Amino acid sequence: MIYLDNNATTKVDEKVLESMMPYFTEEYANPSSIYDFSKKSSRAIKEARGVIKDFINANDEKEIIFTSCGSESANTAIKGVLNYNKAKKHIVTTKVEHPCVLNVYKSLEKHGYKVDYLSVNSNGDLDLEELDSVINPETALVSIMWANNETGVINPIKKVSEIIKSKNPDTKLFVDAVQVAGKIPMDVQEMGIDLLGISGHKFHAPKGVGALYVNSKTMITPLIIGGHQERGKRAGTENVPYIVGMAKAAELAQNALKYELTEVKRLRDKLETNLLKNIYNARLNTAVTNRVPNTTNIGFEYVEGELILLHMSDLGICASSGSACTSGSLEPSHVLRAMNVPFTAIHGSIRFSLSRYTTEKEVDFVCEKMPQIIEKITAISPFQDELAALKARK
Amino acid sequence: MIYLDNNATTKVDEKVLESMMPYFTEEYANPSSIYDFSKKSSRAIKEARGVIKDFINANDEKEIIFTSCGSESANTAIKGVLNYNKAKKHIVTTKVEHPCVLNVYKSLEKHGYKVDYLSVNSNGDLDLEELDSVINPETALVSIMWANNETGVINPIKKVSEIIKSKNPDTKLFVDAVQVAGKIPMDVQEMGIDLLGISGHKFHAPKGVGALYVNSKTMITPLIIGGHQERGKRAGTENVPYIVGMAKAAELAQNALKYELTEVKRLRDKLETNLLKNIYNARLNTAVTNRVPNTTNIGFEYVEGELILLHMSDLGICASSGSACTSGSLEPSHVLRAMNVPFTAIHGSIRFSLSRYTTEKEVDFVCEKMPQIIEKITAISPFQDELAALKARK
Repeated sequence: MIYLDNNATTKVDEKVLESMMPYFTEEYANPSSIYDFSKKSSRAIKEARGVIKDFINANDEKEIIFTSCGSESANTAIKGVLNYNKAKKHIVTTKVEHPCVLNVYKSLEKHGYKVDYLSVNSNGDLDLEELDSVINPETALVSIMWANNETGVINPIKKVSEIIKSKNPDTKLFVDAVQVAGKIPMDVQEMGIDLLGISGHKFHAPKGVGALYVNSKTMITPLIIGGHQERGKRAGTENVPYIVGMAKAAELAQNALKYELTEVKRLRDKLETNLLKNIYNARLNTAVTNRVPNTTNIGFEYVEGELILLHMSDLGICASSGSACTSGSLEPSHVLRAMNVPFTAIHGSIRFSLSRYTTEKEVDFVCEKMPQIIEKITAISPFQDELAALKARK
Repeated sequence: MIYLDNNATTKVDEKVLESMMPYFTEEYANPSSIYDFSKKSSRAIKEARGVIKDFINANDEKEIIFTSCGSESANTAIKGVLNYNKAKKHIVTTKVEHPCVLNVYKSLEKHGYKVDYLSVNSNGDLDLEELDSVINPETALVSIMWANNETGVINPIKKVSEIIKSKNPDTKLFVDAVQVAGKIPMDVQEMGIDLLGISGHKFHAPKGVGALYVNSKTMITPLIIGGHQERGKRAGTENVPYIVGMAKAAELAQNALKYELTEVKRLRDKLETNLLKNIYNARLNTAVTNRVPNTTNIGFEYVEGELILLHMSDLGICASSGSACTSGSLEPSHVLRAMNVPFTAIHGSIRFSLSRYTTEKEVDFVCEKMPQIIEKITAISPFQDELAALKARK
């Protein structure tokens, strides 16, 4: 099995699993209890909070809220800021956000909010002039992903923050950082971020744990109300094993960052270069630069993405045609549509996302097999004339 | 270590842990992906849903939504029903609910909802006449816990449902079943429940997973919006290991139900009888009957609960003075206050909550040590005259 779908989810690192194990059947105390038995679990959470604080370079561990996933982090951030101060009704995001942001914004439109959805160009780059033009005194919140889950394109968050704050210092910036955690350095202070969400299972912690950074100047109304946990910002008995695991995963990711930026990138580039060279109806759906190191999104023209994926699956190769969170929908990717990827390529676009576990041998195997798969599927495409013309142009 | 705080959280069963293990580092696929590798994780979730359906005797597995905890289940149920239909603004609950219900209700009061908080008598029994009198055509939702977390007192849910539906068939009933799962049989159809929440870590699954039952006639607006997971009712990549683990825990709990109702009850009764017999300033804060089999709440008059717990902790005995979710607060238990437990006993009330792991030897040890602890603390109480009078009366 060759797993090239690490933007969908990742394998739990063995060291992460090991770090979690004591908290299931031994140190299982409720961290809020007052007896000695709870000290180890409450201390474990405190330590994990410090690790996550360092991972994103927050100023204070009190700014870290543990959540159950990236979607909860995004929902808490967006609804939390807006519910805390209901006076301002203008909010901004991009056309290429993850559904956990986009669908919250769409629901807010039905509740009296005016929303601006920022455009991207054909490389997936955000229109910063448009951002500058839409921010006004009524803008409560801007939500912009740090990197896109489907294309890996990185947004210039520092620049984004500067533009927002110069137009309206009271506007809050939420950054969905789910797809950059463990892939590029994160520094919330340097970037001027007010709120930031991450998800453990995108960097080798389990599915079911995330974190939300809320800087000390930003107030939110909690999404999940109940006990006093997370300083009243998120009720529910703490998921001690996963919180410990996510902190371990953050440490490992931080240590592996250089490898990610060099070796993972080299393998991604090798895969990408080979496919583009050896498959005449392949096109890179983004620019070569300005992406997280592990992701490439390639359109195979005049063929169906699902068919490609099934052929790949037969050979044990896992990749995806978009976000796992939108799979099942017959709509083509909203991200690629926003980029105006030609309709001839949009249905046959495949996201390959590597990890530090991806080996050269695996990449070589995929480089060898993909041209065969695409050739086979291309042969049965109803667009033979268009394919011949495309081939002639190359 | 003797753990008698199973209403706060439980040890993960070894078999539960075992059932989860393959889904961390082997079968780690995102269940929404389309390749073969995801089939095992998506099938595991489907099977788990069936097990939870059977656990509560729902009619259809589509009625089960996996969540991250009991608090999320309660928040989703309450806000979900009210946000789906905003026309009706009257809601009802009890004075003795868990904070994850009570604090949501309190926040709703600030947003235009009229709330009735039902009283309980000195045994903790709900005032059903009051329930009958408050339900009106504007009542959108009633939220009533199946059993109380601090006292173990069981509410007559079937009767509650009959009263509600006879007064207003459109009023929805949410039942917080967190403290009954694994302790008494649950049958949502027989009981006439519209929505029901459970939490895995109260029945030997890990902290960080729960379920919400929403019957097919009840519509909710989701709390966490994003991807299509859980049929659009709860976004976020599924926590496959914990969902599998909670299903295994439900199976084990179902199989152990008879043991819970006989052996665990016998040990609880033995503990209770001994403490009440051998400690003159001990009083049972509830009636003897109508409680879940594992819980007893005993007030030690004229002494401080925290001091008792610390002395117990020194001997490795874990129990609590109330809900872990309210610990840290200096307020005496809102549950015991609602029951009018005398102020002389309310501060010295201790909840002992057993599990199927509790042994006779452990209970015997606690029976032996508690009188010594209480005697020691009682000796330094400033209420010696009152204690002498109490002793004389016994």
